[in-house]
Amino acid sequence: MNQLDLVRELAEKAETKIVMLVADGLGGLPLEPGGRTELETAATPNLDRLAARGTSGSSIPVLPGITPGSGPGHLGLFGYDPLEFKIGRGALEATGIGFELGPEDVAARGNFCTLDAAGLITDRRAGRIASEESFRVVERLQAVKIPGVETFVRPVKEHRFVVVFRGRGLDGGVADTDPQAVGVAPLAPAPLSESARRTAEVAEEFVRQARAVLADEPKANGMVLRGFAAKPALPSYAELYGLRAAAIAVYPMYKGLARLAGMTLVGQPQSLDEQIAELARHWEQFDFFFLHFKYTDSTGEDGNFAAKVGRIEELDRALPGIERLGPDVLIVTGDHSTPSRLKSHSWHPVPTLLVADSCRPDGLAAFSERECLRGGFGLFPAKHLMLLAMAHAGRLGKFGA
Amino acid sequence: MNQLDLVRELAEKAETKIVMLVADGLGGLPLEPGGRTELETAATPNLDRLAARGTSGSSIPVLPGITPGSGPGHLGLFGYDPLEFKIGRGALEATGIGFELGPEDVAARGNFCTLDAAGLITDRRAGRIASEESFRVVERLQAVKIPGVETFVRPVKEHRFVVVFRGRGLDGGVADTDPQAVGVAPLAPAPLSESARRTAEVAEEFVRQARAVLADEPKANGMVLRGFAAKPALPSYAELYGLRAAAIAVYPMYKGLARLAGMTLVGQPQSLDEQIAELARHWEQFDFFFLHFKYTDSTGEDGNFAAKVGRIEELDRALPGIERLGPDVLIVTGDHSTPSRLKSHSWHPVPTLLVADSCRPDGLAAFSERECLRGGFGLFPAKHLMLLAMAHAGRLGKFGA
Repeated sequence: MNQLDLVRELAEKAETKIVMLVADGLGGLPLEPGGRTELETAATPNLDRLAARGTSGSSIPVLPGITPGSGPGHLGLFGYDPLEFKIGRGALEATGIGFELGPEDVAARGNFCTLDAAGLITDRRAGRIASEESFRVVERLQAVKIPGVETFVRPVKEHRFVVVFRGRGLDGGVADTDPQAVGVAPLAPAPLSESARRTAEVAEEFVRQARAVLADEPKANGMVLRGFAAKPALPSYAELYGLRAAAIAVYPMYKGLARLAGMTLVGQPQSLDEQIAELARHWEQFDFFFLHFKYTDSTGEDGNFAAKVGRIEELDRALPGIERLGPDVLIVTGDHSTPSRLKSHSWHPVPTLLVADSCRPDGLAAFSERECLRGGFGLFPAKHLMLLAMAHAGRLGKFGA
Repeated sequence: MNQLDLVRELAEKAETKIVMLVADGLGGLPLEPGGRTELETAATPNLDRLAARGTSGSSIPVLPGITPGSGPGHLGLFGYDPLEFKIGRGALEATGIGFELGPEDVAARGNFCTLDAAGLITDRRAGRIASEESFRVVERLQAVKIPGVETFVRPVKEHRFVVVFRGRGLDGGVADTDPQAVGVAPLAPAPLSESARRTAEVAEEFVRQARAVLADEPKANGMVLRGFAAKPALPSYAELYGLRAAAIAVYPMYKGLARLAGMTLVGQPQSLDEQIAELARHWEQFDFFFLHFKYTDSTGEDGNFAAKVGRIEELDRALPGIERLGPDVLIVTGDHSTPSRLKSHSWHPVPTLLVADSCRPDGLAAFSERECLRGGFGLFPAKHLMLLAMAHAGRLGKFGA
């Protein structure tokens, strides 16, 4: 019996509220041997107080040593095994710009490129045209019409765009058309299986019409398509957990990931204060709240240790505003580590804290990578966190008699 | 998606070196309640210094409570699930005497036995003939010739030998011929499936000819065959990890296990010093080095606590010679525990240490069974160690976007 079937069977209704605060890229590293991590350096009186009351641990997003992207990182936190459920590149890119994929959609990432008179690629990124120019080119592509299929083209940034085909029987099994070289023509979209033949034909027709429309463009007169993918079939929070789940996020990527899990997007917050205001405003309507805080990751990616410390302290100051609402379960975690020292996501476990009245105390006096190693949840796969959330919220029945 | 597919997908090239030093049977037990283990008793200034810099943990070779043999113990360390990949007894015995199995080989363990005039077993071990006598008998068996099949017979020790059949379409699915009793005849080699019919016939013909050749032997005039097995199909280190891997081992068994994983055997070292000299000599040619140190196991098997302590100290003194080469990742671990108190392999977790610049410090001040329990890797399956090695060596890309 797998975890999803188990939780489906055991989930019970209760009048309890769960808040999961995800500080993106929370975990870190010291800058030099013997030093402290960002979290150990930050003044975090609220997190430390909560750690003394709750139970802590170190979550492993995928497997030891595996560095996750945002997609697998969040899937784990939401209780889906990231090795089982994958979000294809095209679907993730569409999700990241806030395009809501439907069940009949196949999305692909597009790059504009420059073709010569013979149709051979001279610039794989169309001179990295400015986003504004790309917006204009994408607008021209709205003229493309394919019988029996709805087509959506959306700009991303510079030469990058997303195309979504919507229609019955479409299939993401189409090969990339990027030859990864100049001096050659883009490849034809080739089906990887019989069931993707129609989708490949649709993509080919799209490219044919697009080429005609863009023939007079000086730079963006061609394109390559990559990462064809349908929306992943994730069971929803409502169906799995019986939770009315809300997502309160600033950035489209995390809104999109939450939508894939069936969460309802709440508000248009632009800051943590606004996110907490939305939380308060929608408190009665939902049982589960996913709050996403981006800046612990972006400062880490920038390699800005001090700025990451500052963002952790900002997060800490926001906690009383959440506590005031009286969540039955309050979780603080991250989707992965982003040590400023590495300027990138990493594989290191993520400090994780759960506070509820039913917590077994583990004697921690602070919230940090090192302290969490001695925490009551130990080192645990991130996909188990939702089981712990549900249990501490009194929302999981007994397994077996 | 399983671990091997995952690592195959994520493996990246880098100019980094990984050294895995396997102290066979490293973990131990105190001799009496309240006492110290061998590792806690030994003076290990280098291991302790490295533990303060690196990340430690306790590896579980197979599953909690499961005592592994050398085969599964090493498979786990090399990143193969020992419950999925099995090395059949015959293949392990051939490997253990340094016979390099090919893809068309089926190996079996043989025991010489004594038969009476009616062909019934009177001594299942042929009076435990001396190894020298066995060598002579094995030499006579070189006369056996089977059409279409190459046959190799090699002595092991006393009455034990190995036979390898090489030919197209052979299959390890043949039942043991040992009736496990005296007063009865050896069983005929019976195929366990249709695809092993030919192999069973080959084995039967081998036994028929061997009986004729050995008819005048006073003791070793018969034989039983056990553990028919082909070479396990392990994906290689090169294919899986993109690593040029070298094995620097003294004993044939460990050389053989490394060869099964596609490692290159380096040198003919007879001591740890010679192993480190080989390491230095081949430093530029390889990315991964497996160094095997036998004596922590053999002293444990002997029940010689003090000698095991001494061997651990010998290992500790050798570490600076490895560090001097500047490995990007240095691992010290064992394939299982061999507590002197038990005089045998055991199921207890194995103290494991990984040192790299990208380690997250876990605050340990020493390297021991007890300290490792508080280490940053926690209790972890041995098969995950290679993921950690690859990650810390900057050789694993991001999973998902």
